Amino acid sequence: MAASAALRVFAPEISAPKTSVPESLPPAFPPPLLSTRPVDRAAWIAAYRAVRDETERRAAPLSPEDQQVQSMADASPTKWHRAHTTWFFEQFLLREHVPGYAIHDERLHYLFNSYYVAAGPRQPRIMRGLITRPTMDEVAGYRAHVDRAVEALIEDAAPEVLERVLPILEIGLYHEQQHQELMLTDILHAFAQNPLHPVYDAAWRWPERDGRAGAKVLARGIEAVGHEGEGFSFDNESPRHEVLIQGGRIDQGLVTNADWLAFMADGGYGRAELWLSDGFIAAQTDGWEAPGYWRREGEGWASMTLAGLKPIDPAAPVTHVSYYEADAYARWAGRDLPTEAEWEVAARDGDLGDAFGHVWQWTRSAYAAYPGYRPLPGALGEYNGKFMSNQFVLRGSSVATAAGHARVPYRNFFYPHQRWQFTGLRLADARA
Amino acid sequence: MAASAALRVFAPEISAPKTSVPESLPPAFPPPLLSTRPVDRAAWIAAYRAVRDETERRAAPLSPEDQQVQSMADASPTKWHRAHTTWFFEQFLLREHVPGYAIHDERLHYLFNSYYVAAGPRQPRIMRGLITRPTMDEVAGYRAHVDRAVEALIEDAAPEVLERVLPILEIGLYHEQQHQELMLTDILHAFAQNPLHPVYDAAWRWPERDGRAGAKVLARGIEAVGHEGEGFSFDNESPRHEVLIQGGRIDQGLVTNADWLAFMADGGYGRAELWLSDGFIAAQTDGWEAPGYWRREGEGWASMTLAGLKPIDPAAPVTHVSYYEADAYARWAGRDLPTEAEWEVAARDGDLGDAFGHVWQWTRSAYAAYPGYRPLPGALGEYNGKFMSNQFVLRGSSVATAAGHARVPYRNFFYPHQRWQFTGLRLADARA
Amino acid sequence: MAASAALRVFAPEISAPKTSVPESLPPAFPPPLLSTRPVDRAAWIAAYRAVRDETERRAAPLSPEDQQVQSMADASPTKWHRAHTTWFFEQFLLREHVPGYAIHDERLHYLFNSYYVAAGPRQPRIMRGLITRPTMDEVAGYRAHVDRAVEALIEDAAPEVLERVLPILEIGLYHEQQHQELMLTDILHAFAQNPLHPVYDAAWRWPERDGRAGAKVLARGIEAVGHEGEGFSFDNESPRHEVLIQGGRIDQGLVTNADWLAFMADGGYGRAELWLSDGFIAAQTDGWEAPGYWRREGEGWASMTLAGLKPIDPAAPVTHVSYYEADAYARWAGRDLPTEAEWEVAARDGDLGDAFGHVWQWTRSAYAAYPGYRPLPGALGEYNGKFMSNQFVLRGSSVATAAGHARVPYRNFFYPHQRWQFTGLRLADARA
Amino acid sequence: MAASAALRVFAPEISAPKTSVPESLPPAFPPPLLSTRPVDRAAWIAAYRAVRDETERRAAPLSPEDQQVQSMADASPTKWHRAHTTWFFEQFLLREHVPGYAIHDERLHYLFNSYYVAAGPRQPRIMRGLITRPTMDEVAGYRAHVDRAVEALIEDAAPEVLERVLPILEIGLYHEQQHQELMLTDILHAFAQNPLHPVYDAAWRWPERDGRAGAKVLARGIEAVGHEGEGFSFDNESPRHEVLIQGGRIDQGLVTNADWLAFMADGGYGRAELWLSDGFIAAQTDGWEAPGYWRREGEGWASMTLAGLKPIDPAAPVTHVSYYEADAYARWAGRDLPTEAEWEVAARDGDLGDAFGHVWQWTRSAYAAYPGYRPLPGALGEYNGKFMSNQFVLRGSSVATAAGHARVPYRNFFYPHQRWQFTGLRLADARA
Repeated sequence: MAASAALRVFAPEISAPKTSVPESLPPAFPPPLLSTRPVDRAAWIAAYRAVRDETERRAAPLSPEDQQVQSMADASPTKWHRAHTTWFFEQFLLREHVPGYAIHDERLHYLFNSYYVAAGPRQPRIMRGLITRPTMDEVAGYRAHVDRAVEALIEDAAPEVLERVLPILEIGLYHEQQHQELMLTDILHAFAQNPLHPVYDAAWRWPERDGRAGAKVLARGIEAVGHEGEGFSFDNESPRHEVLIQGGRIDQGLVTNADWLAFMADGGYGRAELWLSDGFIAAQTDGWEAPGYWRREGEGWASMTLAGLKPIDPAAPVTHVSYYEADAYARWAGRDLPTEAEWEVAARDGDLGDAFGHVWQWTRSAYAAYPGYRPLPGALGEYNGKFMSNQFVLRGSSVATAAGHARVPYRNFFYPHQRWQFTGLRLADARA
Repeated sequence: MAASAALRVFAPEISAPKTSVPESLPPAFPPPLLSTRPVDRAAWIAAYRAVRDETERRAAPLSPEDQQVQSMADASPTKWHRAHTTWFFEQFLLREHVPGYAIHDERLHYLFNSYYVAAGPRQPRIMRGLITRPTMDEVAGYRAHVDRAVEALIEDAAPEVLERVLPILEIGLYHEQQHQELMLTDILHAFAQNPLHPVYDAAWRWPERDGRAGAKVLARGIEAVGHEGEGFSFDNESPRHEVLIQGGRIDQGLVTNADWLAFMADGGYGRAELWLSDGFIAAQTDGWEAPGYWRREGEGWASMTLAGLKPIDPAAPVTHVSYYEADAYARWAGRDLPTEAEWEVAARDGDLGDAFGHVWQWTRSAYAAYPGYRPLPGALGEYNGKFMSNQFVLRGSSVATAAGHARVPYRNFFYPHQRWQFTGLRLADARA
Repeated sequence: MAASAALRVFAPEISAPKTSVPESLPPAFPPPLLSTRPVDRAAWIAAYRAVRDETERRAAPLSPEDQQVQSMADASPTKWHRAHTTWFFEQFLLREHVPGYAIHDERLHYLFNSYYVAAGPRQPRIMRGLITRPTMDEVAGYRAHVDRAVEALIEDAAPEVLERVLPILEIGLYHEQQHQELMLTDILHAFAQNPLHPVYDAAWRWPERDGRAGAKVLARGIEAVGHEGEGFSFDNESPRHEVLIQGGRIDQGLVTNADWLAFMADGGYGRAELWLSDGFIAAQTDGWEAPGYWRREGEGWASMTLAGLKPIDPAAPVTHVSYYEADAYARWAGRDLPTEAEWEVAARDGDLGDAFGHVWQWTRSAYAAYPGYRPLPGALGEYNGKFMSNQFVLRGSSVATAAGHARVPYRNFFYPHQRWQFTGLRLADARA
Repeated sequence: MAASAALRVFAPEISAPKTSVPESLPPAFPPPLLSTRPVDRAAWIAAYRAVRDETERRAAPLSPEDQQVQSMADASPTKWHRAHTTWFFEQFLLREHVPGYAIHDERLHYLFNSYYVAAGPRQPRIMRGLITRPTMDEVAGYRAHVDRAVEALIEDAAPEVLERVLPILEIGLYHEQQHQELMLTDILHAFAQNPLHPVYDAAWRWPERDGRAGAKVLARGIEAVGHEGEGFSFDNESPRHEVLIQGGRIDQGLVTNADWLAFMADGGYGRAELWLSDGFIAAQTDGWEAPGYWRREGEGWASMTLAGLKPIDPAAPVTHVSYYEADAYARWAGRDLPTEAEWEVAARDGDLGDAFGHVWQWTRSAYAAYPGYRPLPGALGEYNGKFMSNQFVLRGSSVATAAGHARVPYRNFFYPHQRWQFTGLRLADARA
């Protein structure tokens, strides 16, 4: 399968992103509501297959060598993503809920557990790239083994078993979608280390923006935020609760490369007074003088993309900027980043420009528990809660996010120095 | 002056702490309100002298060697604190506002600027301990030179000059008080590295607690927080603004050493499920198995204090715990840390037990700008604003805080791994 | 080709090692003497092909993933070895001596230069494992391209050209053989990181030892050492020069695993008085308690080998020990390591037991220039000379050394902490 | 005591250095030969006092702050040197050989043991600068206590006890002299970190050179090297043994600053082909572009000296150069460094120019055991032997070496990257 074909399935969403969550989801995803009765087993199997296939489609353009590499501690090999998402189903679904399930290979448990301390010891994260066996093809065998067992489970499970396993199946699907995004960001990082500028998909291009200008006014008042209703959500989106919106404005448009070039031309990367202290240290230590993956080409700039090294498009949203850079840019512009609650309230009615499908948008909210938050019980409780320090929330979704995954209350989070995700920003004005 | 005498001046506050801000302040501090007319020059000079004297009193028990040492990057030498606080007045008051002022020694500017990038290059922080000249006594000369000039300025300045300089003088006094606290915490860290367990003040003892039990109910509703009125405040306490208190409860008492020993006995330091991910890594990497400065003594524990190595007092508030430890303890207890707004609202009416004068209390609020916050103009704008990432807010004050310094809206902040301050905690229950 | 077949070609040498240099060399290697006239072009082509084929045979059992991995800074990917040895011929032979030669891909120059500063900038060593493109198969294409050009050059070159290029061709062959050894040691290191214990060659086994006991007496006197005669040598083996042998004895046998277990049982790894200061620090820092790749299995020990994890064979020579360990062992035994000159004089007449084909043998000679040493001119002068500090000389050859490569005056060298080569030791007694 | 007075006692040796070991020693040093009978107790006491006084004279210009600082891991505080040399006598002489000796303070044992593992655990080297207590004055008390006990021991010991203790007393004196040299090099390093350029001794100046030119011819042949006769030596100078001198030449003069400036002007610091690989990495990593302590002053260079920052004297011997730099310089000049044996043979008859009292001279000999070397028994066996890896030998002595300490067979050794000693070079030509 050619590289561009591999991306075709999610390309439609990419090339015509909506201002809010994409509506034209692949027919099979998301799966039915958990509460739907009778359970539509065929629909769950179809959803499962759609997600699993998408992973393989994203991996298809990559050689065994590409799938092996771990280019930094924050990134993981493609092969590892494919195996870890499989382990997730084996560990939390099959091992715990299917008596007599034959573990594919007990030794893989150690290799493909990511960070679930309660699930036992695991391969150190920074050493994921050292595991050459199982090979890419052997991981395909692992996936097939687990797929057969999961599909059989959905098809044949007694109703009371189904009751217990569907919530785990559902979280496994969303979990795998998160790794689908990482597969693209991680391989882009790896390719960016290679002076040959490998191409992931020659047909890849930045989706069109809706290009709305102006700002949306945020009224002062109490608003409810967080997960609501019956659809899927991660535990960190709950409990839904009220917040006081101070009022202010939030831009309809994303900050663009043209905007960013103005910041650079004004000496933005070298002016300490614009930066957080930790941010300026990071910028100096790592020699930042432009967003991630930018390099000088003659008089201008080019950037490493999924389609290889390409000239900077001034109209495209700036991406691969850290929180520190986003914060410095806002200060330079005399503006603010929005809080995550402001973003959520503004996006809720669907008319915030380019909210989804372009770049994750840094907010000025530190990632923290919602009041009364309690993580899931057991090992899955490690999914989100234990990361609630030192990170900032991003909202929206990116060009690399799997179709059907993005939602308004969704809380993404990264450390303020990280730049390898498709991270950008929109500006706001806090009420003075 | 003997060591215990040196502490006598602030010891009264320590030995009889109040439940809110101490009332029996040294007569000379705080200085008059900035708005008071006519300006009471004598009162300002008295306030200046009181603060400057307190610094010297805290330094008095320390030998030239003690004042030289920098035991880690986060700490600074006593001599440096004495010189840096002096530089602050020279740089921001005398150099900028007194025509013809004779700089004491132009070369000291580089050595004793702390982190004011706008004020020019400076000695790298981690190399402060390498500067043996000027000596302790030469720094005393620097202090005397600046004191004469500042006092002359206050006495003789034309009214319109006084108008401009009093706000800087005032911030300089509060700035020096902050360094007075650091002088104690930094020398305690240095002494804790010495197997001889040097004693800073043999008469030092932990102040008595008021020992109130039970919890105070927090009503749900909108409350205003932040600085109000005419008294002094730092820029990060503004603007005063409204927040939505979710409701819940906050304990009257601080977590004690006895409480902490129960956490330890229950394996608290080794149970990953109780910890933030970054926190567990810090605990494992640094080998934490008890609060900072604790060491095993026979069957029990002792701790390095300002009075040397002392057995743990079960009734005393636990201190030298990081945010990570405080957070893990709260999770172990099935409780929460309060937010900084909850703390402020609870403390405002004065009846939160042991709020001041014992230990700074970690809140679960990441240190961030209040909505509409704008830093001071110029180099002083670097005072607070540029640290608004990766840190958590602490409220109250500690046994080492200078008399007259603590206030209800005061926002202290440290990184979540830091333990060398007098940091402890009180628990709360967030509304579920 | 199956893994064990892949090793068959060099296996005969391995399974029946001689006490000195193996005699039954592959017919085609080594090539004719440089001075032989007329030049036997066919013999040179045959030698070239034999060496190039051996590289591919060693790579054959390895998957694309295996060939991609770089498991530490000291090791390189198999794919890199295959490409770098090819670059060596392209750079020093074809580019410089074949007008009109079409560079295969100019961009590979940067990627596959190892450390020749004079040959231009290059991929940082620690980032060799990040280069996923060219793939394993594309590297095969690179090899074929260069092979065609080299063979055509040998076949068709005018005699005066041949005169110039044969010395470079010859060094290129020996260079490639050195990388053949590294291919095995590097993949063993990578496999040793994998808890699945991958097998490189299931049929691999340790060659038989001749098992001679006793010690050979070294007479006091002046002896000539270094390269002599017309055969190939590296520049660091010259000039041949006289040394004063102090006299003493040198063991016929290698130190075995059984010997080493006695050292371990006697607390050897924990007794500082047996170790060099730098060595004890290395042992403590890295947690050494046994040779490299050893791990506890029940009551005993197993070791990672090219055939996977295998129980320790007490009779086999100990290997994967650093100089620091070898030195500590000798001190524990009340013996010495030989100097490189002592080793050479003892081995010269061919009756030093197990001198070749088992383990490289640490000497107590720091790697240094022979008196009057001058490196080759140009970039090839960087081959050996610039490493003459901080390393120790090893003599003999190992089970992984290519057939025909070992010679008595050969000087191998590694840093004293390194353990991933097949490094062992024999003891001696220096004259007191 | 003023700074320049403090140096006066050893200044005579400095200002009129001899071509071999200085003859006009202080009357009291060295002590009598160990074999002299009857034992001249008064002479031993005089020698002891002379050495102990010299330590105090070197410390006298330094403030308590100066004596406290440790400016890098390789350096130690002055106060530590004063206490450690005292501990050496207390530990190896008094504790072991004087029944009923009252240890001054048992806790100092941990603080002032340097690296004698056999003598028990000790303060980590890099944390010596954190120990502010005992103070400078308290260390003086420690010295006085031990001095009284040592002098009483010499005066009163029974003859058979004296027999046992005099060899330890003697090594203790030479040991203290080694630390006297380190006191100067370590404080110079500390002062060089201070932008105020503190002055240790305003009267300090570089001693005059004898300025001989030309080279001395080394005959080929067998020569004996190492310690001979009855005088003091360190264990690493034995056994005396024969070596084969290859022949060649060795310069009478030291390489000067003028020579070095030519190397710099020719791009020496940036030309990889001149450097050892490890050396070039060190030079690039640490940003070397001139010898240690040099800094640009206008169009020229100045250097931090014991007299403060001074312009470079072209005629003075270059100093504060690492082995890597010395090696690169020799390669640039098309010359060699001598071996330590060549140096010793050339210096033996006393007519090698400026051999002593200027700069230690790097040789190209790795520091290793002489054939048959056995260290002293017990903890003192750690004195020299355990450092025999990764270091190079230097010969001669420096401007900072204590009077009476230097001898022809003396072997000094440092790591090839170290520059804070007074290290320079003379060139040679190895026989080709």
